[in-house]
Amino acid sequence: MAHLLSTSCSLKLITSSKFDLRHMSQSSTFYPTSLTLQTSTFPSKRSRQRGLTVFATALSPSQGIQSQSSSGFDHKDTEPSRLKRVMIIGGDGYCGWATALHLSKQNYEVAIVDNLVRRLFDHQLGLDSLTPISSIHNRVRRWKSLTGKTIELYIGDICDFEFLSETFKSFEPDSVVHFGEQRSAPYSMIDRTRAVFTQHNNVIGTLNVLFAIKEYREDCHLVKLGTMGEYGTPNIDIEEGYITINHNGRTDTLPYPKQGSSFYHLSKVHDSNNIAFTCKAWGIRATDLNQGVVYGVTTDETEMHEDLCNRFDYDGVFGTALNRFCVQAAVGHPLTVYGKGGQTRGYLDIRDTVQCVELAIANPAQPGEFRVFNQFTEQFSVNELASLVTKVGKKLGLDVKTISVPNPRVEAEEHYYNAKHTKLVELGLKPHLLSDSLLDSVLNNAIRFKDRVDTKQIMPSVSWKKIGAKPKTVSAYPNN
Amino acid sequence: MAHLLSTSCSLKLITSSKFDLRHMSQSSTFYPTSLTLQTSTFPSKRSRQRGLTVFATALSPSQGIQSQSSSGFDHKDTEPSRLKRVMIIGGDGYCGWATALHLSKQNYEVAIVDNLVRRLFDHQLGLDSLTPISSIHNRVRRWKSLTGKTIELYIGDICDFEFLSETFKSFEPDSVVHFGEQRSAPYSMIDRTRAVFTQHNNVIGTLNVLFAIKEYREDCHLVKLGTMGEYGTPNIDIEEGYITINHNGRTDTLPYPKQGSSFYHLSKVHDSNNIAFTCKAWGIRATDLNQGVVYGVTTDETEMHEDLCNRFDYDGVFGTALNRFCVQAAVGHPLTVYGKGGQTRGYLDIRDTVQCVELAIANPAQPGEFRVFNQFTEQFSVNELASLVTKVGKKLGLDVKTISVPNPRVEAEEHYYNAKHTKLVELGLKPHLLSDSLLDSVLNNAIRFKDRVDTKQIMPSVSWKKIGAKPKTVSAYPNN
Repeated sequence: MAHLLSTSCSLKLITSSKFDLRHMSQSSTFYPTSLTLQTSTFPSKRSRQRGLTVFATALSPSQGIQSQSSSGFDHKDTEPSRLKRVMIIGGDGYCGWATALHLSKQNYEVAIVDNLVRRLFDHQLGLDSLTPISSIHNRVRRWKSLTGKTIELYIGDICDFEFLSETFKSFEPDSVVHFGEQRSAPYSMIDRTRAVFTQHNNVIGTLNVLFAIKEYREDCHLVKLGTMGEYGTPNIDIEEGYITINHNGRTDTLPYPKQGSSFYHLSKVHDSNNIAFTCKAWGIRATDLNQGVVYGVTTDETEMHEDLCNRFDYDGVFGTALNRFCVQAAVGHPLTVYGKGGQTRGYLDIRDTVQCVELAIANPAQPGEFRVFNQFTEQFSVNELASLVTKVGKKLGLDVKTISVPNPRVEAEEHYYNAKHTKLVELGLKPHLLSDSLLDSVLNNAIRFKDRVDTKQIMPSVSWKKIGAKPKTVSAYPNN
Repeated sequence: MAHLLSTSCSLKLITSSKFDLRHMSQSSTFYPTSLTLQTSTFPSKRSRQRGLTVFATALSPSQGIQSQSSSGFDHKDTEPSRLKRVMIIGGDGYCGWATALHLSKQNYEVAIVDNLVRRLFDHQLGLDSLTPISSIHNRVRRWKSLTGKTIELYIGDICDFEFLSETFKSFEPDSVVHFGEQRSAPYSMIDRTRAVFTQHNNVIGTLNVLFAIKEYREDCHLVKLGTMGEYGTPNIDIEEGYITINHNGRTDTLPYPKQGSSFYHLSKVHDSNNIAFTCKAWGIRATDLNQGVVYGVTTDETEMHEDLCNRFDYDGVFGTALNRFCVQAAVGHPLTVYGKGGQTRGYLDIRDTVQCVELAIANPAQPGEFRVFNQFTEQFSVNELASLVTKVGKKLGLDVKTISVPNPRVEAEEHYYNAKHTKLVELGLKPHLLSDSLLDSVLNNAIRFKDRVDTKQIMPSVSWKKIGAKPKTVSAYPNN
């Protein structure tokens, strides 16, 4: 082992032995071409492991083993003073990457588990991040060179339990933050194959994480990203996960009724139900973060270097309302309000996403507790967002128009909406509210990269009603 | 085509092109050895079909084409007077087989879709039905010879959408009754693989059915078997699918909160949420039958011939409380009450299952309606059932003892339980209540076949808390 590590390796890859995206044709393992790969088995107890373990030489000798804050092999020897170990599943994605950097900066030992399939979706759908993003390998090497901190990397699919087991046995997480799901509602509504993929990938992936915790790290705290979309738009106040119901003279506090409005949202409802059961039956400790719509792109850490830049989606499949509006304003495209625009949702800055996750980790759920936080800071209707962007755009000299386009979704366009979100504030969340100055910075970021905008990606291309059984190739050029 | 049919074929098989039970090793198609197989493609529009179509010669010339009430090919010509066509997914199982015969008797055109995996589970777990059951092929041929009625047979896996599409295009159902799920809570708690199989099989199978209806038969009524277990044991009355909640001065009628208590029960919760969404988004018409625990074995139709005999499970994995108690009483095994025995559930006679399904089909949901019926007739605690079996056993000269065994499940053993079940009664259900005389007949049936009982199958062998990640071979001889 020593001779491998002495090549100054700071990346440890366990490749998935199979890649379970059955409907997509691709090779079964990911070998980053910029890395020199060396195959080895772990010594001693790790020789039992069946996964292929790959060590990579790093970019420069300055990133040698001597600067690693954890070797990844001897951390148990340093207990009880060892740093808290956080596994971030989906750590290459929009929220996951920002969270990984933030927690690493806060002196957590961080490992990213990701199959990088989000990057594949872009290729397959002809989409791209507004911001240019580096490979995950360059990202973590740059982080190391800037801060001296190692982020371990496990490339593989958590639907492959053999792979996931190896990551748990190797990294021994104290917390698992699970962003590793297909996270787009429109993607899940493209065709039957993608609907099935979304539910299979999300539900089975989460089941595997639950089994891995039970089998290998029973005290590990699961922090699971849910969505405010699980609740739908009921005509009563939305509580945080549970509601006390008085009915026919009796009372009980029960899970808040869920009404998912896409196969994606429903997959998160399924996850919540599965996790709640394992908390009760097995004593798992879990926090379900029902997150609102995230906006913004920069955090303190991603601003440190262009190699650390986060992705920013503005297309009709992965782009969310406010981010998309900012790009539209930047390139002179009318803001596209779906239907009447009265759709009201909770929103938050990505800097609050990373703060909320840190608060959840630092204040873990109790064994057997299934804790639900509504993770957003402000409510807006789509029309309100369009007005805000118009106003701030004007200040920046942009002539912003708004149009209503036929709503591709099936949803109420005018409705009551009042969702509670006090629990994270009670834990210490200091929200970044959507002031003019913040919107300025998001808009300016969009203006900065406006030459990278493909305006044909902006309009909605996925219809909730027209989804069919036949596999669909989504055109990157819907108007041609 | 004519020359094939003139060989007096009344069985039409479309075999699944793949068998998606990935964790089990087996051959990929099922060719019943007693049939002479002839492969053909459908003529005209059916030549587009990609599934392998297999025609089988029937048992005897007396079952020739002239007695078919539908050829399966020209039914569209007979519209509008054609018989209502009902596809029964899982039609070889306990409830499915009884329902298929009942509906065929009631002059519905019936097709059974089944991958026969329930029979495979018995082989793999070393279990067997108390009653000797014929192959599905002999079953439908015997039905034909006794009644002149054809039950079409499609052998394949609904998780294989290509197969399912062919069954829809070929049979053109007006109603789909979906029993085709892994239906045992203990089975889903054996190990990770079976937990994942249960959720994948049930959720993806149902998604495929929804897509098939949308794509090929948008007016088709889905009658989906749910379970009363979706509700758990809340401390308030259980309503039928929905509950009106007054909260902070506002009111809404929302889906009743669900608390599934095994990966199986949770899979049905997931199904209910998915179906509700497609009713809203696509206008699917669906009835969710939240069925209680079914007891009994005979219906008018299954009693007509030993080849029509239904299965009867008494083992710790597939056997349900009352059926298992009757077998225990018959062989002198103490009745095994799990824990305190205060667990209260809804129960119904299998003759009411078939009646309820017929009522749901005859009174379909409206387009876009997601209708939920609680399908049971009486509530009992486990202790009450044990007392009843003891009392009736005494009358039959049996010395019945009861023991408490450690509860293998995680569930409340003393709790409030009051579940509404009026909607099916309003549609005309005439319940068979669990009177002494009925319990007599279930007990006598157990006594009749008591020499077939393997007492080692009776004790619970699956623990909710001990389930692990490693694949488990369940011993048929747990006490050895």
